[in-house]
Amino acid sequence: MSLNTFGHLFRVTTWGESHGPALGATVDGCPPGVVLDEPMIQHWLDRRKPGQNKYTTQRREADAVRILSGVFEGRTTGTPIQLMIENTDQRSKDYGEIAESFRPGHADITYWQKYGIRDYRGGGRSSARETAARVAAGAVAREVLKVLAPEVAITGYMVQMGRLRADRDRFDMAEVERNPFWCPDPAAAAIWAEHLDDLRKSGNSVGAVVEVVAAGVPAGLGAPIYGKLDSDLAAAMMSINAVKGVEIGEGMAAAELTGVENADEITLGDDGRPRYSSNHAGGILGGISTGQDVVVRFAVKPTSSILSPRRTIAVTGEAREIVTKGRHDPCVGIRAVPVGEAMMACVILDHLLLDRGQTGGRRGPIGR
Amino acid sequence: MSLNTFGHLFRVTTWGESHGPALGATVDGCPPGVVLDEPMIQHWLDRRKPGQNKYTTQRREADAVRILSGVFEGRTTGTPIQLMIENTDQRSKDYGEIAESFRPGHADITYWQKYGIRDYRGGGRSSARETAARVAAGAVAREVLKVLAPEVAITGYMVQMGRLRADRDRFDMAEVERNPFWCPDPAAAAIWAEHLDDLRKSGNSVGAVVEVVAAGVPAGLGAPIYGKLDSDLAAAMMSINAVKGVEIGEGMAAAELTGVENADEITLGDDGRPRYSSNHAGGILGGISTGQDVVVRFAVKPTSSILSPRRTIAVTGEAREIVTKGRHDPCVGIRAVPVGEAMMACVILDHLLLDRGQTGGRRGPIGR
Amino acid sequence: MSLNTFGHLFRVTTWGESHGPALGATVDGCPPGVVLDEPMIQHWLDRRKPGQNKYTTQRREADAVRILSGVFEGRTTGTPIQLMIENTDQRSKDYGEIAESFRPGHADITYWQKYGIRDYRGGGRSSARETAARVAAGAVAREVLKVLAPEVAITGYMVQMGRLRADRDRFDMAEVERNPFWCPDPAAAAIWAEHLDDLRKSGNSVGAVVEVVAAGVPAGLGAPIYGKLDSDLAAAMMSINAVKGVEIGEGMAAAELTGVENADEITLGDDGRPRYSSNHAGGILGGISTGQDVVVRFAVKPTSSILSPRRTIAVTGEAREIVTKGRHDPCVGIRAVPVGEAMMACVILDHLLLDRGQTGGRRGPIGR
Amino acid sequence: MSLNTFGHLFRVTTWGESHGPALGATVDGCPPGVVLDEPMIQHWLDRRKPGQNKYTTQRREADAVRILSGVFEGRTTGTPIQLMIENTDQRSKDYGEIAESFRPGHADITYWQKYGIRDYRGGGRSSARETAARVAAGAVAREVLKVLAPEVAITGYMVQMGRLRADRDRFDMAEVERNPFWCPDPAAAAIWAEHLDDLRKSGNSVGAVVEVVAAGVPAGLGAPIYGKLDSDLAAAMMSINAVKGVEIGEGMAAAELTGVENADEITLGDDGRPRYSSNHAGGILGGISTGQDVVVRFAVKPTSSILSPRRTIAVTGEAREIVTKGRHDPCVGIRAVPVGEAMMACVILDHLLLDRGQTGGRRGPIGR
Repeated sequence: MSLNTFGHLFRVTTWGESHGPALGATVDGCPPGVVLDEPMIQHWLDRRKPGQNKYTTQRREADAVRILSGVFEGRTTGTPIQLMIENTDQRSKDYGEIAESFRPGHADITYWQKYGIRDYRGGGRSSARETAARVAAGAVAREVLKVLAPEVAITGYMVQMGRLRADRDRFDMAEVERNPFWCPDPAAAAIWAEHLDDLRKSGNSVGAVVEVVAAGVPAGLGAPIYGKLDSDLAAAMMSINAVKGVEIGEGMAAAELTGVENADEITLGDDGRPRYSSNHAGGILGGISTGQDVVVRFAVKPTSSILSPRRTIAVTGEAREIVTKGRHDPCVGIRAVPVGEAMMACVILDHLLLDRGQTGGRRGPIGR
Repeated sequence: MSLNTFGHLFRVTTWGESHGPALGATVDGCPPGVVLDEPMIQHWLDRRKPGQNKYTTQRREADAVRILSGVFEGRTTGTPIQLMIENTDQRSKDYGEIAESFRPGHADITYWQKYGIRDYRGGGRSSARETAARVAAGAVAREVLKVLAPEVAITGYMVQMGRLRADRDRFDMAEVERNPFWCPDPAAAAIWAEHLDDLRKSGNSVGAVVEVVAAGVPAGLGAPIYGKLDSDLAAAMMSINAVKGVEIGEGMAAAELTGVENADEITLGDDGRPRYSSNHAGGILGGISTGQDVVVRFAVKPTSSILSPRRTIAVTGEAREIVTKGRHDPCVGIRAVPVGEAMMACVILDHLLLDRGQTGGRRGPIGR
Repeated sequence: MSLNTFGHLFRVTTWGESHGPALGATVDGCPPGVVLDEPMIQHWLDRRKPGQNKYTTQRREADAVRILSGVFEGRTTGTPIQLMIENTDQRSKDYGEIAESFRPGHADITYWQKYGIRDYRGGGRSSARETAARVAAGAVAREVLKVLAPEVAITGYMVQMGRLRADRDRFDMAEVERNPFWCPDPAAAAIWAEHLDDLRKSGNSVGAVVEVVAAGVPAGLGAPIYGKLDSDLAAAMMSINAVKGVEIGEGMAAAELTGVENADEITLGDDGRPRYSSNHAGGILGGISTGQDVVVRFAVKPTSSILSPRRTIAVTGEAREIVTKGRHDPCVGIRAVPVGEAMMACVILDHLLLDRGQTGGRRGPIGR
Repeated sequence: MSLNTFGHLFRVTTWGESHGPALGATVDGCPPGVVLDEPMIQHWLDRRKPGQNKYTTQRREADAVRILSGVFEGRTTGTPIQLMIENTDQRSKDYGEIAESFRPGHADITYWQKYGIRDYRGGGRSSARETAARVAAGAVAREVLKVLAPEVAITGYMVQMGRLRADRDRFDMAEVERNPFWCPDPAAAAIWAEHLDDLRKSGNSVGAVVEVVAAGVPAGLGAPIYGKLDSDLAAAMMSINAVKGVEIGEGMAAAELTGVENADEITLGDDGRPRYSSNHAGGILGGISTGQDVVVRFAVKPTSSILSPRRTIAVTGEAREIVTKGRHDPCVGIRAVPVGEAMMACVILDHLLLDRGQTGGRRGPIGR
């Protein structure tokens, strides 16, 4: 991953500031001949759209995507696909008071220090608005995956809000689309709703943990040592705004296991393919997919834009107190779910192409 | 990060299998004129060397590094530096029985599936032996940092073994070099020693959590959005053998905090530089360093090479039971400490060069 | 150079088809704080604009560029700069007859074979229209160079049309902007004007040779061995539509010289800097700039879109005769002059940043 | 191409100085399962070996290559292949007098200026000795091509020495291996032999033009716009020591043709594939291969190491006269023939992998 482009063959470059005229993504290296149109991409953007429910940002945007290149007569041409989303609902005056001050927990101060200039409106380039471009690119990846690897299914959901964990024994994936938290445990969703209402009224915020699973990923994807599938996934998720930790499979908890506890034993399934007794590994061994579910989790820190006063300084060095007004997410983790899915889609597709480039996709045979 | 090379400007390519003639690293893009010789690099390799104490691999290797290029009259030339370590103590017969079978939890099966061929001796390319090359490259990075950023100090240590956590209130960094666990809490080190003895006798293994801190990192390093400092660190640590989770600052625990709890407030220090009330962020905001300690943690899963039988299959598909004999680490996390330090050094230096490339290193002023 | 992005630190990605809604360039890695606005970029695009005189394409386009990101309050932010040019004057019906056939000498057949789909309107992605995006990106590079290396001056001009060579003894650079051929020899310009009129009437076309000189380039730019300044320039110029040869300094003629004839001897100038007796090397030795004028030449083949019938096949394999109607350049070399300048600007700037990244820009001293 | 690595998927990194302990190449991304051993690579190195005849460098080297990784039981594993050649015959004292002075026409001065340090022995990293590493890597590429694209045949030969052109009407490719000039025109070879003897006795040198042809390249290779096959070939050849010009097909002469003269018309061959009336394009249209012979030419300047005195300066700025003694090539173009072939092999293979990565290698159908 480098600068504003990620990916090896399926290369995505995003651009655009929160309050600029537009933002977007250039998708380069897309396989040709794939059916693609604006409604297909719009579908995924709508899942992310702020203003959808009372728990997410109150900013109302159409988030309407346009395809400016790379598609002809309804199919991808193999040339760069430019996706553009115009910004239509910026309330610049909401941000006026922070032109001079650095909001604690945000990138205001680091962008100023690094670049000596910053577009302070809505966080500029550091705003989570950038993730709309990723979701658009992820939509393209999904359409390509439908053609090249139709068994792949990517699902993201929240497993934790603050200290409140969803109960895996009650998981029902059908519930994910039915509550505003993408939570597969309806009981937890109800508790979270109350908790979040309390926090909103107090002007506070809370973190979250999002899990993204890619099922049906063929074995053999990943480019060791430094293009390992888990390395690229870690970089992808860590690049999302406010993310502070990334896990594969057991994640940090793997440290607490013994070798006996952590083992995923192998047998031969009836379909002649390897079968694993468990999936502590999260679907990746030695940086290469095993064919099991690829399981990634990431932690999103609580929004730093809260309504209680925080101490900070202005660019002059003077002490300031800052109270962020305007539109805010009490739990940005919710909006990170579609973003995590999009990153998963892009990385899985990228590795599918990379693998067929180096090896032609032929697998070492097992059995027979 | 891509394939077997990582880094943007300070680019490291590693090569070599566990039981091949040699392994090594090509360091490209190294700034010229830096004093460098073999003993400097050897110093860091010796810290990693197996056979050092009874807790790590019994394989005895000289791990003697040679510099084959890129250094002239004791200084780096700016041309590629080839570091080579010859393998001198491989006991091939120890691995003979796994030529046909796939060790559970290792990359044997995924390498076979991806490549249709694998060097099974000692894990081939997937072996942790590869990390010796990283430590050598990290040594070069350290020497360059001494010249370009002498305030930078990188320290790695274990904070957890299995379920046993070291106590941060008892941390004394001087202890890190005094026990075989690089543990800053001497009481914990003693407990771990006992615990590990028990596990070794039972033939089991345990995981660990390693923390690496880079102090004195200037503010402004990182290349958002997809070359963020934390993204590159996440990819770097996740690429280390057996790592399953990576955290920055609060890490996964950030999810459990509220906005009020997580805030790192800002004031102006007496030295005219920003001062933070805390460091939940781990030294990185918006993917760019703040000037605070950069704090990274990663979890290492328990070694899959344990002495109790595990069920697996052979390449023919037949059911097998595998008992790994020979030399093993009961806790690979111990050996990952110098590796984590090496990766931190490479990434920090890389970003220092990248930053001075794009911005010339001038910082946006605060104060005055 | 890779896919649709070129550059190492100053990275330009172009997108857009000839008859799509728009085309553009994403400029990533631009140093921050540089004054930039749309008129500055428009100035350079206007020099390239078709319809300017009777010798170039009759397509009338506003070629109006918009800056969609990366600039705030009139200065670059260091974040990606999206430049977009909307296509306003496509005459799609002009191209209808080639939907099924492959125009000889164009990329129609190769794009079809590679991608299995092609946007045939105006050549789609393979059209020289793409070079408008490069010129826009080159304009950004020029503005940055004014700040970082104000002594750098880039000038492109035609030295040959068909078999008619301009006379170097008559070169007067002030003439370059005074005739439609960017020719520094006014006598040659007059002869070329007649010659081109004849060819236009006969429906034929002719090739050209363009020379681009970068004066004032500091010594030390280039990243041997595979990022050599001349390698990157060769790739840059060869990537321009219809280019078939690239030369540095003496170019192909260097083969005909003896060592004695080709020598550029070195003395120390009065300013304490190295002075060269001549510049057969074209300003580059060992892939690194010497401080002399960097001299690059490239040959543009004659337009394949001519008005005489050519034999070809349709996608069905049937024999066809094709006569290209509509708007055409009788000598595309003319329009390649601003494009060559733009590529020179991008590559020089890229290497300036790359050099200061690896070495900090400090030079080995000579003299004193 | 970047720094010391070239290639997108088949990535080659070279390292090593002329008088260092060794030099070599790391070949990354090599498809697995290809038969490879040291004698196969040695064969191609022997073709390049200095001291082979009286016309090339008198330095006698075994140039013995060792494979240190990436091959197991005689086949490539898909992991990095380290190829090492130890330097055994350096006569360091031959270069002693230039430790302080800069040889005109060489990279001595630019390396000093850029890096502030240089290994002056034998030109250090800037020496043509580096090309031995390329030839070794090219040998690996050839072996892979035998498996993946057995119809590809790569042949290089000299077409010009100084002002003496070989006669294409007399070309017999069987002659290429029979004379020391790799010249397909035996009459020209005889004339060149005399001419070179004269130049050697006078201590002068002469340039050359080398042509490399890749026959049997499938249509569809190349990654427009900035990964065009001809761009990558241009960069590859320009990166070779002493190269000053690169041509594809007609090359610089394309400028002198009219559209009618330059046309390669298309019909359908009996085999159902497109057939071209000629090959002015050199096998590449729009940056993508057509299936015709890919024809590349490059000009090598005369060796700057000649035995007549040249004026230069020392690092102190003092005027010096330099007479290069020791071992020299009167015509380095001869030795560039195997190097050009090696670069062609690497680039063709790289693009074959890249194409199958993005498109899966399926071609748009023509005919039926």
